[in-house]
Amino acid sequence: MPAPSTAPNLMATIVSLCKRRGFIFQASEIYGGMGNTYDYGPLGVELKRRVKEAWWRANVTTRADVVGLDSAILQHPKTWETSGHVAGFTDPLVDCKTCKARFRADKLGEAQCPQKPSRTPLENKCELTAPRAFNLMFKTHVGASEDSASVAYLRPETAQGIFLNFKNVLEASRLKPPFGIAQIGKSFRNEITPGNFVFRMREFEQAEMEFFVPPAQNDEWYAYWRARRLQWYLDLGIRRDKLRVREHEKDELAHYSTATCDVEYEYPFGWGELEGIACRTDFDLKRHSEASGVRLEFFDPDTKEHYTPFVIEPAGGIDRMALTFLIDAYAEEMVENEPRVVLRLHPKIAPITVAVFPLVKKDGMPEKAHELEQELREAGFSTFYDEKAAIGRRYRRQDEVGTPWCVTIDGDTLKDGTVTVRARDSMKQDKVAARDLVAYVTQALRSWKQG
Amino acid sequence: MPAPSTAPNLMATIVSLCKRRGFIFQASEIYGGMGNTYDYGPLGVELKRRVKEAWWRANVTTRADVVGLDSAILQHPKTWETSGHVAGFTDPLVDCKTCKARFRADKLGEAQCPQKPSRTPLENKCELTAPRAFNLMFKTHVGASEDSASVAYLRPETAQGIFLNFKNVLEASRLKPPFGIAQIGKSFRNEITPGNFVFRMREFEQAEMEFFVPPAQNDEWYAYWRARRLQWYLDLGIRRDKLRVREHEKDELAHYSTATCDVEYEYPFGWGELEGIACRTDFDLKRHSEASGVRLEFFDPDTKEHYTPFVIEPAGGIDRMALTFLIDAYAEEMVENEPRVVLRLHPKIAPITVAVFPLVKKDGMPEKAHELEQELREAGFSTFYDEKAAIGRRYRRQDEVGTPWCVTIDGDTLKDGTVTVRARDSMKQDKVAARDLVAYVTQALRSWKQG
Repeated sequence: MPAPSTAPNLMATIVSLCKRRGFIFQASEIYGGMGNTYDYGPLGVELKRRVKEAWWRANVTTRADVVGLDSAILQHPKTWETSGHVAGFTDPLVDCKTCKARFRADKLGEAQCPQKPSRTPLENKCELTAPRAFNLMFKTHVGASEDSASVAYLRPETAQGIFLNFKNVLEASRLKPPFGIAQIGKSFRNEITPGNFVFRMREFEQAEMEFFVPPAQNDEWYAYWRARRLQWYLDLGIRRDKLRVREHEKDELAHYSTATCDVEYEYPFGWGELEGIACRTDFDLKRHSEASGVRLEFFDPDTKEHYTPFVIEPAGGIDRMALTFLIDAYAEEMVENEPRVVLRLHPKIAPITVAVFPLVKKDGMPEKAHELEQELREAGFSTFYDEKAAIGRRYRRQDEVGTPWCVTIDGDTLKDGTVTVRARDSMKQDKVAARDLVAYVTQALRSWKQG
Repeated sequence: MPAPSTAPNLMATIVSLCKRRGFIFQASEIYGGMGNTYDYGPLGVELKRRVKEAWWRANVTTRADVVGLDSAILQHPKTWETSGHVAGFTDPLVDCKTCKARFRADKLGEAQCPQKPSRTPLENKCELTAPRAFNLMFKTHVGASEDSASVAYLRPETAQGIFLNFKNVLEASRLKPPFGIAQIGKSFRNEITPGNFVFRMREFEQAEMEFFVPPAQNDEWYAYWRARRLQWYLDLGIRRDKLRVREHEKDELAHYSTATCDVEYEYPFGWGELEGIACRTDFDLKRHSEASGVRLEFFDPDTKEHYTPFVIEPAGGIDRMALTFLIDAYAEEMVENEPRVVLRLHPKIAPITVAVFPLVKKDGMPEKAHELEQELREAGFSTFYDEKAAIGRRYRRQDEVGTPWCVTIDGDTLKDGTVTVRARDSMKQDKVAARDLVAYVTQALRSWKQG
């Protein structure tokens, strides 16, 4: 029996599983790898799609008071001057005058000399420059010239794209506060010390919402979103004792924020931020109003007054969510004296929903299995067909990637039209009429309770 | 009656509709706009989500022979050296020594002097430099230094991310040719002459598939994908006479390509490429094999031979698809002597699936309407509630954004539990039991035929 994976082994186990089964690969691996950059493989892209879909469904589709947006990565540079990112979105760096290496000034204790054998700490004889602010935004140039007029930045957050469109959305959608604008998209931060697999990457995908409220309703909506976002993770099966909400201390708050909290998860490397919920007040809308000369306010027809709404911002990273679901779902256990690795993913986010197996490769079973496979695919279910190896081994392969249901076509299928549906977690088997299979899976998905 | 919109008016009409109703906004509009960059508003983001979902469903979910991928935008620079983009992905540019402006050498005939009143063509006295190659990739720097070792490019196409992962995907998914790897994601090209709204942008979203086949099957799969991709547009309602497939002439082909065609649409500004289907042979896999030293081949267990598959690549732009669906769906007509604007979008891609109206704002109708609205939302349908203005005007507002069904709660609803479902195209009205509404819409969506 393999030892139950515990920190820090668990991270290595997850990284290895992710590569082997096609969840996540090192980017540009054939060229030695692109540091801190990852590609999602066939199973990873399906997991990520479902996490995004679940987020969108909970925060947009099922809500009358939230609409979506998809703003560009490249925005006018004035955006980032106004938001404060050009001046303030920095890490303090020092250079070594001897070996020319660069280090984070606030992490010199962990720094290692890159010209010495690995693990050699920075030496006292190294002569370091004074710390300088290094901006974390990726810079590029738009158009044919590379002068200062053509500078553009890859957005470091999706939020500003929402503030820029506040007026356009208000006019087009006829919403009134309290209402939200939600967005999922890539952001980029030129982190000096990224790490922990897809937990902190330079290129990452965010899911953010700016929820605009009358200032007097700020506190109640902050409490609402804090509870709501925590509940979303619980609804998708994350264990309660691995989650906590940590309110920021006064000295941690951005100067404009009245309150901020993090939903934290206990990763193998310690407690870490999974999502932040921030009270941003009217800071962003007012700044952009002043800088652009365009009034970003709401006119209340009842009171006949203009006001700038306050903002509650729930903001998380899709990559980090996907990683968290993987880590939390991972389990090793003994089944009939054999080890079993199982990802207990909620079926709504499992990359494969149904696997279809012919018991043996003859007697028309593969044909019938392919027929059912295609029926499930047409019904929209992510489906996987497997006819290789013993049935037990095929179950294990699906357990390891979190497939909630495996369907076996056997002798009975050809006689009485029934198939065997085996559940991932309980390993119990159900006899189901093949013609009812789509309805069975639809119903099982809908009524799922983690247990 | 408004004149039927014809080119070139139609483009202006679409752009205006897009802004007014919240499909597409100029990016950074409050700062004077970011040139050639657009943000998708509440309706646009839903349209785009559905176009992507329809593409993924047709090309991945319903197919046993295609898997998905989501590779990073920033890859190792060797990727773009090997693919030929560093050396060859260029436009020829000339500078004017007098006014310092820069022009495309191959479009000097259309060039206008930026220092003269608008529409003044380039003058003979302008002294131009010889053409120089200008690379269309956006360049940035990763990490803390800005030297040549830290250069990275924003990917100009998603395709290379698929070739880089060929081996990883093959090993993780146990597929064998013919099989495909599909991907949707952002790409970036520093175009000197972008234009026509979201038709050609610097930042855009691609949907690409590399379909790997045994070389002997190249021609049949090329024919297959050419027909299949054309059919996809027809299935989603694009008019047949607005589409054509144009085979590239020999002198248009990339040197490694044996055949390429474009699915073209007749835009208001002329016939333009909607999607390309290219035979890329074994060019990319072989180049990356040579440059990386990693064998990117398939071992055929039947013949015991290694070979490099040939590639068929259907590649389209999601923004361009969305624009095409909007343009093709747009119609103006007279209904009972009143003009009506209607977007005849296929219900699978319409941003709002159902609108819900209380006939009047009293007698419990708004409450009942909100109840049905929420039921539809929970069932996953994009839903819009409207209680403002006369019912006819509310219909028109939904017609203009392509909502296929409007549901009215009226006196009958409170008496016998029925609601009125009005269809966008035929404008016919159906009486439906409120409790059957979700099933009714589900069925109507499933059995939709454009007519």
